[in-house]
Amino acid sequence: MDRISSMFEAHPRRSRVDTGRLPAFVLELADCEVTCTLCADACLSEPHVQMLAKCIALNLECADTCAATARTLSRFGFAEPSVTRLQVEACREACGACARECDRHQDMEHCQLCAEMCRRCEQACSRALESMLAGVS
Amino acid sequence: MDRISSMFEAHPRRSRVDTGRLPAFVLELADCEVTCTLCADACLSEPHVQMLAKCIALNLECADTCAATARTLSRFGFAEPSVTRLQVEACREACGACARECDRHQDMEHCQLCAEMCRRCEQACSRALESMLAGVS
Amino acid sequence: MDRISSMFEAHPRRSRVDTGRLPAFVLELADCEVTCTLCADACLSEPHVQMLAKCIALNLECADTCAATARTLSRFGFAEPSVTRLQVEACREACGACARECDRHQDMEHCQLCAEMCRRCEQACSRALESMLAGVS
Amino acid sequence: MDRISSMFEAHPRRSRVDTGRLPAFVLELADCEVTCTLCADACLSEPHVQMLAKCIALNLECADTCAATARTLSRFGFAEPSVTRLQVEACREACGACARECDRHQDMEHCQLCAEMCRRCEQACSRALESMLAGVS
Repeated sequence: MDRISSMFEAHPRRSRVDTGRLPAFVLELADCEVTCTLCADACLSEPHVQMLAKCIALNLECADTCAATARTLSRFGFAEPSVTRLQVEACREACGACARECDRHQDMEHCQLCAEMCRRCEQACSRALESMLAGVS
Repeated sequence: MDRISSMFEAHPRRSRVDTGRLPAFVLELADCEVTCTLCADACLSEPHVQMLAKCIALNLECADTCAATARTLSRFGFAEPSVTRLQVEACREACGACARECDRHQDMEHCQLCAEMCRRCEQACSRALESMLAGVS
Repeated sequence: MDRISSMFEAHPRRSRVDTGRLPAFVLELADCEVTCTLCADACLSEPHVQMLAKCIALNLECADTCAATARTLSRFGFAEPSVTRLQVEACREACGACARECDRHQDMEHCQLCAEMCRRCEQACSRALESMLAGVS
Repeated sequence: MDRISSMFEAHPRRSRVDTGRLPAFVLELADCEVTCTLCADACLSEPHVQMLAKCIALNLECADTCAATARTLSRFGFAEPSVTRLQVEACREACGACARECDRHQDMEHCQLCAEMCRRCEQACSRALESMLAGVS
């Protein structure tokens, strides 16, 4: 078991959440934050930054939203389910928007990798929302 | 005109947003982030911190959500309306939850002040959501 | 007395800090974060974004560093003086670097306003560091 | 090669940084942020939260400082070396302070795991600072 899973297991209120999937979701969000921050910075160093302005803006939005969502999910002891659900919904939209824009710049490897990461994170958000609606998480 | 309003006025895409209300909303979110961070830290120094555990958790949640929402609203040049709307909805819920919990600790001035701030911020979120639905913002 | 000053006054460990200057400093950092986030977004919407790539990168750096520093200063109940001092030093450098770069783009009002804000925040960092060395804060 | 390393490799200015160690350092900071956020939340749910107040405060400080430092290191395209160095120094202090406090609560598994994570991150900061002084990074 990885360190983050062990941290979830060691939480006094672990029974409040689905500790099977949540640690992997939080790590995915953390990875997506780093990836989007790197993609924005790489785009700023490209010769054709003009074409990448929207991509940079959506990278930054996705990075900040993933960061906020990872925090919310890591604070499950006294979490308000309505806040968690809306935050994950906002994150799914931000990841989707970033993935679609990065997909338009497939000639740059950082955009290609970032699109893949955002797509995975968008799907992780969708799965988490399904569990919440099913009352599992 | 204050500095933040001038910054909104100086943005090349200022016509995309209602620059009347948005600067004040962003400042309210920034104030609420600081207030909730201070309330959490004050609660941690109280003799009866046990009773304040939920309050601290909701303070932290509200601070991070306000921070993320202020960022989203300050990045309106290429904003995705669906992300903005969901982020403001998450923020309204986080502010409401924090206000309700702080209200239960009226004997501590920091909780009293924090409840007032969160209530104001919750209302600012509601007004912003009404404008968005009305297509103004 | 403004709301943030009242929050500092209501903190059980208010005697640990110079509550005269600290609230204004924290608000200055919060304002600088918003201003730099707005300047980055405005730059991304300018026709000559290529020339502004470094400015955008330093805006983002300054925004995140100001945010982290405001958090550190708002958590003074159990603060480690060495962390606080280094964080304020990092912030002074980030504000100075951003101010110098924004100064090079005086033809854009958002850069002009952002340079002024960063310069003020840089000075506030310097004053805070002097107080810390003098053992006041 | 993992995804984050590939992102560093795909950056147009990759030659500015030591891409051997930097990706692992950024991931360590991201892990430490999540771990500290989880430890703070777990502490808030413990029956003896009173004893853990300082631990919670230092967890929060460490989480925010690691987050800011990961952002700074991921924005290496136009980075100011003085900001990076001071931010990593602040982070090393925050990790060290958190590790020392968590070490005092070895009976709680989350504090034990968090102490280990913070100690690793503190060492990663030290190694990075040595590289910077040696002019490698």
